[in-house]
Amino acid sequence: MASLKLGMVGSGFMGKAHAMALHTAPVVFPLSAAVRCDLLADHSAASAQAGARRLGFSRSTGDWRELVADPAIDIVSVCAPNDLHYPIARAALLAGKHVFCEKPLALDVGESRELARLARSKGRVTLVGFNYVRNPVIGMAAELIARGELGAIHHVRATHVEDYLADPARSGGWRTRRATAGLGALGDLCHVLSLTQRLAGGIAEVCADMQTVIAQRPGADGSAQAVENEDQAHALVRFSSGAIGTIECSRIAWGRKNGLTIELSGSEGSLYFDQERQNELWLYRRPRGGGGGEGFQRVLLGPDQPDYAAFCPAPGHGLGFNDLKVIEVRDLVEAIAGGVPAWPDFAAAAAIDEVLAAMERSWRQGGWEVV
Amino acid sequence: MASLKLGMVGSGFMGKAHAMALHTAPVVFPLSAAVRCDLLADHSAASAQAGARRLGFSRSTGDWRELVADPAIDIVSVCAPNDLHYPIARAALLAGKHVFCEKPLALDVGESRELARLARSKGRVTLVGFNYVRNPVIGMAAELIARGELGAIHHVRATHVEDYLADPARSGGWRTRRATAGLGALGDLCHVLSLTQRLAGGIAEVCADMQTVIAQRPGADGSAQAVENEDQAHALVRFSSGAIGTIECSRIAWGRKNGLTIELSGSEGSLYFDQERQNELWLYRRPRGGGGGEGFQRVLLGPDQPDYAAFCPAPGHGLGFNDLKVIEVRDLVEAIAGGVPAWPDFAAAAAIDEVLAAMERSWRQGGWEVV
Amino acid sequence: MASLKLGMVGSGFMGKAHAMALHTAPVVFPLSAAVRCDLLADHSAASAQAGARRLGFSRSTGDWRELVADPAIDIVSVCAPNDLHYPIARAALLAGKHVFCEKPLALDVGESRELARLARSKGRVTLVGFNYVRNPVIGMAAELIARGELGAIHHVRATHVEDYLADPARSGGWRTRRATAGLGALGDLCHVLSLTQRLAGGIAEVCADMQTVIAQRPGADGSAQAVENEDQAHALVRFSSGAIGTIECSRIAWGRKNGLTIELSGSEGSLYFDQERQNELWLYRRPRGGGGGEGFQRVLLGPDQPDYAAFCPAPGHGLGFNDLKVIEVRDLVEAIAGGVPAWPDFAAAAAIDEVLAAMERSWRQGGWEVV
Amino acid sequence: MASLKLGMVGSGFMGKAHAMALHTAPVVFPLSAAVRCDLLADHSAASAQAGARRLGFSRSTGDWRELVADPAIDIVSVCAPNDLHYPIARAALLAGKHVFCEKPLALDVGESRELARLARSKGRVTLVGFNYVRNPVIGMAAELIARGELGAIHHVRATHVEDYLADPARSGGWRTRRATAGLGALGDLCHVLSLTQRLAGGIAEVCADMQTVIAQRPGADGSAQAVENEDQAHALVRFSSGAIGTIECSRIAWGRKNGLTIELSGSEGSLYFDQERQNELWLYRRPRGGGGGEGFQRVLLGPDQPDYAAFCPAPGHGLGFNDLKVIEVRDLVEAIAGGVPAWPDFAAAAAIDEVLAAMERSWRQGGWEVV
Ligand SMILES: NC(=O)C1=CN([C@@H]2O[C@H](COP(=O)(O)OP(=O)(O)OC[C@H]3O[C@@H](n4cnc5c(N)ncnc54)[C@H](O)[C@@H]3O)[C@@H](O)[C@H]2O)C=CC1
Ligand SMILES: NC(=O)C1=CN([C@@H]2O[C@H](COP(=O)(O)OP(=O)(O)OC[C@H]3O[C@@H](n4cnc5c(N)ncnc54)[C@H](O)[C@@H]3O)[C@@H](O)[C@H]2O)C=CC1
Ligand SMILES: NC(=O)C1=CN([C@@H]2O[C@H](COP(=O)(O)OP(=O)(O)OC[C@H]3O[C@@H](n4cnc5c(N)ncnc54)[C@H](O)[C@@H]3O)[C@@H](O)[C@H]2O)C=CC1
Ligand SMILES: NC(=O)C1=CN([C@@H]2O[C@H](COP(=O)(O)OP(=O)(O)OC[C@H]3O[C@@H](n4cnc5c(N)ncnc54)[C@H](O)[C@@H]3O)[C@@H](O)[C@H]2O)C=CC1
Repeated sequence: MASLKLGMVGSGFMGKAHAMALHTAPVVFPLSAAVRCDLLADHSAASAQAGARRLGFSRSTGDWRELVADPAIDIVSVCAPNDLHYPIARAALLAGKHVFCEKPLALDVGESRELARLARSKGRVTLVGFNYVRNPVIGMAAELIARGELGAIHHVRATHVEDYLADPARSGGWRTRRATAGLGALGDLCHVLSLTQRLAGGIAEVCADMQTVIAQRPGADGSAQAVENEDQAHALVRFSSGAIGTIECSRIAWGRKNGLTIELSGSEGSLYFDQERQNELWLYRRPRGGGGGEGFQRVLLGPDQPDYAAFCPAPGHGLGFNDLKVIEVRDLVEAIAGGVPAWPDFAAAAAIDEVLAAMERSWRQGGWEVV
Repeated sequence: MASLKLGMVGSGFMGKAHAMALHTAPVVFPLSAAVRCDLLADHSAASAQAGARRLGFSRSTGDWRELVADPAIDIVSVCAPNDLHYPIARAALLAGKHVFCEKPLALDVGESRELARLARSKGRVTLVGFNYVRNPVIGMAAELIARGELGAIHHVRATHVEDYLADPARSGGWRTRRATAGLGALGDLCHVLSLTQRLAGGIAEVCADMQTVIAQRPGADGSAQAVENEDQAHALVRFSSGAIGTIECSRIAWGRKNGLTIELSGSEGSLYFDQERQNELWLYRRPRGGGGGEGFQRVLLGPDQPDYAAFCPAPGHGLGFNDLKVIEVRDLVEAIAGGVPAWPDFAAAAAIDEVLAAMERSWRQGGWEVV
Repeated sequence: MASLKLGMVGSGFMGKAHAMALHTAPVVFPLSAAVRCDLLADHSAASAQAGARRLGFSRSTGDWRELVADPAIDIVSVCAPNDLHYPIARAALLAGKHVFCEKPLALDVGESRELARLARSKGRVTLVGFNYVRNPVIGMAAELIARGELGAIHHVRATHVEDYLADPARSGGWRTRRATAGLGALGDLCHVLSLTQRLAGGIAEVCADMQTVIAQRPGADGSAQAVENEDQAHALVRFSSGAIGTIECSRIAWGRKNGLTIELSGSEGSLYFDQERQNELWLYRRPRGGGGGEGFQRVLLGPDQPDYAAFCPAPGHGLGFNDLKVIEVRDLVEAIAGGVPAWPDFAAAAAIDEVLAAMERSWRQGGWEVV
Repeated sequence: MASLKLGMVGSGFMGKAHAMALHTAPVVFPLSAAVRCDLLADHSAASAQAGARRLGFSRSTGDWRELVADPAIDIVSVCAPNDLHYPIARAALLAGKHVFCEKPLALDVGESRELARLARSKGRVTLVGFNYVRNPVIGMAAELIARGELGAIHHVRATHVEDYLADPARSGGWRTRRATAGLGALGDLCHVLSLTQRLAGGIAEVCADMQTVIAQRPGADGSAQAVENEDQAHALVRFSSGAIGTIECSRIAWGRKNGLTIELSGSEGSLYFDQERQNELWLYRRPRGGGGGEGFQRVLLGPDQPDYAAFCPAPGHGLGFNDLKVIEVRDLVEAIAGGVPAWPDFAAAAAIDEVLAAMERSWRQGGWEVV
């Protein structure tokens, strides 16, 4: 069996999530190749060394350029802050590596387009961390829609609302500065857009609004620091299919912790999903014949759904956030060693960034924008 | 105690709801005046006579003009199809009656404005049937917000989604023709707007989209009939307060039966309401101090909330749709005989129609419109 | 159309509920007779007079014996405290009246048996206020079960948990004294038993446990008063059908306001109901064929279900607690004037009291008791 | 850092779950020792070899006796069918190994007692797979109760209802035979009892009922095979603390997939948990002061709760069933290498089996039994 060596940049929230998934995936799924957690890069040699020990990597470096240049490395996983995605992913592609990059792909759509072009010209596998599309109940939803069980989709309503910056006393860190984060709350909207893309296809036109509600936050030294990107944003959208809908994101919506929701209505039925209850899908099929007794069904995770049985043979036992990354790692490996196309790759992520860019244009110009 | 005589036009869904409420209200609430169900008008003398018997009215007529002109009548309740609201309400005001009119107030904003002006000049009490604003949990929500418990409101998301015309084999009747209904799904959005008005204040700007998804429906004779108004509509909105939000309505959203929902997020907390579970309000207050254990609370109806105790001394026993009309009748009577201002009166309903008109303009012109 | 005169004893929580229902029912349903709210009795002449005015009765009296003896009265509604049910109902039957009595029928099963016998010998209509069995979604449940859609019922779990006496600083009033209330929390279990009877048939054997948790409460004068009946009780039960189950009640279960729930599992499916969300029934039908996507359905109230359409032609609009009393009044009138058997009549209520009596024996003797 | 070698018996549902957890735990938690997946035993050499490859073990054997006797092995994980728990665990303890055994500990309480005694005399660490007690929201619940936030617990209602054998056409395999499974549905009740033990302490008395509803099932060869253990069981219980409650289990409750629920009511509040929504705890604190707006709170998982932050720094992101095993492995390792007492160890599991044994006696004798 082929063996691949992976180098990872960053050892924070996502670095740990990638590491867990990399260690677990081969036990969960039969994989077409082994992946070895080889080299970890972080912002300093010391933190890289500590991270490598914690996360089960063999080697470490304080300079990601070294990692990207290392000939032993086959795959680069990018778990650093947003502003490093572009330079790291670019360098990795130029060095001929496969790239597994956290979302958002880059700081702006120009960078994303360039990365997508580079990935294509280099013929390398790329994958972006839109983990929520891996949920087995989303997989089931996609299959139901593909089989026509909801008919033609007429309407989509999707949100990603959280409250991680609802408290004005909380520092924004790198997340509230343009130079390091690019987008604010919209940086999470790409999760929504990965779901709408999978379930309802592409968006053709948008009309957006957005706001920075909390203008200043305490910086690291306690002094007031300007917030440079949006706290909340939303848009009307028109899909290529003719469906219409609304999308929305917020980082200041008190009480919502991971409020990634999507509701679709079609000519034959509807469905509803909420990541805060990630183990269930709500499904309504229009009634046929009489008899009454029709309502939304709460369908729990189960072995009939894609990938679930690999985690658990019994229905309703529940997956967690990190399990979605395990499926993502499987998809990465199968794209590299098994010939299965990776999705969402850099091209797909760039397409998502086109929507975000159109939203920003729309907001500045105050009207509809073609994506 | 004063005694008022009421004449009602229409004896369908709403006619019956008004009649139930008129008979029940004096037992539920101490009222400043007695209201007698006196005269019922319907589209024919026969149906009016049958309706009067069923609904407990003393007299009947096949011509609403007779009712409006009858000097014995103090209050006219308008429960006829939308296209009759304007002529009946206008004639009633000109004849010096108080008017209790079902929503929407009129077929278009021009008519609504005229009715509002006339009501003011005549000094009569007017009330429009936005029953959902009467819900005790909405009353509690309004009080919480007024006391500042949610802080400054930043975001509003509200919907009214139903599936009563999701089946394309279903005839639209008067509801899908411009001449008789005016608006389509937007005709229900006024309920949403009455809630947003009560909880978040006025809307200053809108940007809307709308669609007729099912272009033809069977008419009464089975032949195909064009659908002349929208099946679904939604908009981005900006409130005068600075808050932003989305509003949405549909009559083809399979599975949603009375999906009138509203979620508000503010600087100190959030709330959520869904009319399909009309007896509960979801409330989140930002955590103070440590300790954890914070989440949305599901607050059931209870005697602490406005008006509930008049129906039931014990909490959580549940009100129904028709009970909201009972509260509405109480408010009507107290406006006439008790000196309490009626809300939403014709002026408030006209203001709501200004928003709908701006939505339609926005949709036609493809951009933001000032209300 | 026949006309019946009703006399009511009591004008508190239930007195008002009966009055609302009596005034509303003729507008909601076509009734086989008119019922006139004629005479109200209360504990004093003054309070009876005030009550009559509030609740729309023509006459009043401070002595229920007068009411029961009044030849004009056809129906006696008993809304007084529990200890008065037996003497009033007995006297009313002896005087040849139909009796509409609030639950529980009497203070103990001996009284209930006697009342049931008397009702039979007198040939009068009797009905007991088990309002929850009137819920359209319970009616739908009963129909589904009767049609075999859940197959043979194997298991039942039912509760009635509330917190109205969870606060030890709250006075128990007449409810915590044996002489006036008889049972404590078990006094509400009869609601549960009316549901199990309707949906799963009779109970043959019980094994119970019960407890008074809060031994003393402040009396009216603030001094400590012994609590003489149980705060919580539960039992294992065996149905005549062979099904087994648990039933439970509490008046000290913090957070539960009207926690009347029932879950039934059968060979073909399951259902679940919670009165706190009285407008929905949860239904699971075992999957047939492949395809996945099976879960509990949340079925909202709708016009296909018994009686709902009389309140509202549109589904999901919601009934309230008081609406169930309206249906109860309809059933009372139809039993008297329309020849439809009344259920649960005094015989049915006595059968329920046999279960409660067996529970008390079981608790005292510490083992199973045949009902 | 110490290094431990683990041998595992069985490679089915639980074998895989243990393997995933063993590979993931060191990345999630800082551990006091490394644990190496060394030797896998299964029912044949071939299946052991395949299992070892799939699950990341270095060596394999077709005979668990070899594994238990292997001097290199420090810890034996028992993931074989129930009838093998006793012989394997016994042999492993006699050979001086630490034992990590799946639930139920043994086929009957006699075996469990013996294993508990042996574990004590050998001074080895033992842990039984009651994974649900590891849930961070259960940890939070335990802390709240320990701090007195719910006051004295009065009542407990707990269930474990599933439908994995609701279909009579489904073969029971080893699970429906006494010799291989011992208990039927009660075999899952130990999960419930581990939760009640953790949150409400020990059970002193029980009164139980149970039933085999489906008497025969198809065997492997399609012929009818008698079902030898119970499909559903329930009991009244009395806790040592004075609280009372009901516990219940079923394997034929259509629609329930992992219906492990617990509701506790105390003098200061209540809580509710449902494993099907394992990422939330419902919490009610009695209201203090006025103001209204009190209801059950839906508290999502978050970093304030035990162990959650090791998986994810952001609240509400969700753990899955397998993550609970990761925490279990951490607890195992810390018991062996970190000096933290393991719970529930064999003594605790034997205490749970005493309750089950008392339930069986109670059922046979038809009354209350002291545990
Ligand atoms: N897929 C998902 O659901 C999520 C994705 N993300 C994405 O993951 C990325 C990382 O976010 P988090 O892990 O939350 O951030 P974090 O702040 O927890 O971790 C960032 C890591 O990058 C390292 N780093 C910073 N500068 C570096 C440099 N110059 N060279 C090497 N390493 C450097 C830091 O030392 C740290 O280990 C972001 O792009 C974010 O948008 C974050 C959370 C969830
Ligand atoms: N507040 C709320 O929640 C609701 C409000 N409505 C509103 O109530 C109004 C009536 O709707 P529904 O009761 O659902 O309609 P419906 O079709 O059930 O009843 C209409 C009634 O008007 C009568 N009518 C028709 N032409 C007439 C004429 N020329 N003269 C006198 N009577 C005439 C009909 O005979 C019928 O009795 C509409 O404007 C509708 O938008 C309807 C449903 C809910
Ligand atoms: N079906 C249901 O869901 C419910 C049934 N009930 C039952 O209804 C009955 C009444 O309970 P509530 O209305 O809650 O009590 P309440 O205390 O609110 O009202 C009792 C009424 O009886 C009157 N009364 C007391 N002594 C009297 C006398 N000697 N002669 C005439 N009237 C007298 C009182 O003045 C008062 O008007 C009880 O048996 C109770 O169990 C109560 C609540 C709900
Ligand atoms: N903690 C929990 O939530 C759960 C615990 N369990 C428990 O785990 C245990 C195993 O159950 P499952 O994994 O579901 O069963 P399973 O049937 O999926 O796996 C049993 C494994 O044991 C092996 N085995 C059978 N005979 C053997 C022998 N003589 N020598 C060596 N290996 C042998 C089989 O080949 C198979 O690999 C049971 O005791 C069960 O009660 C099961 C499911 C959930």
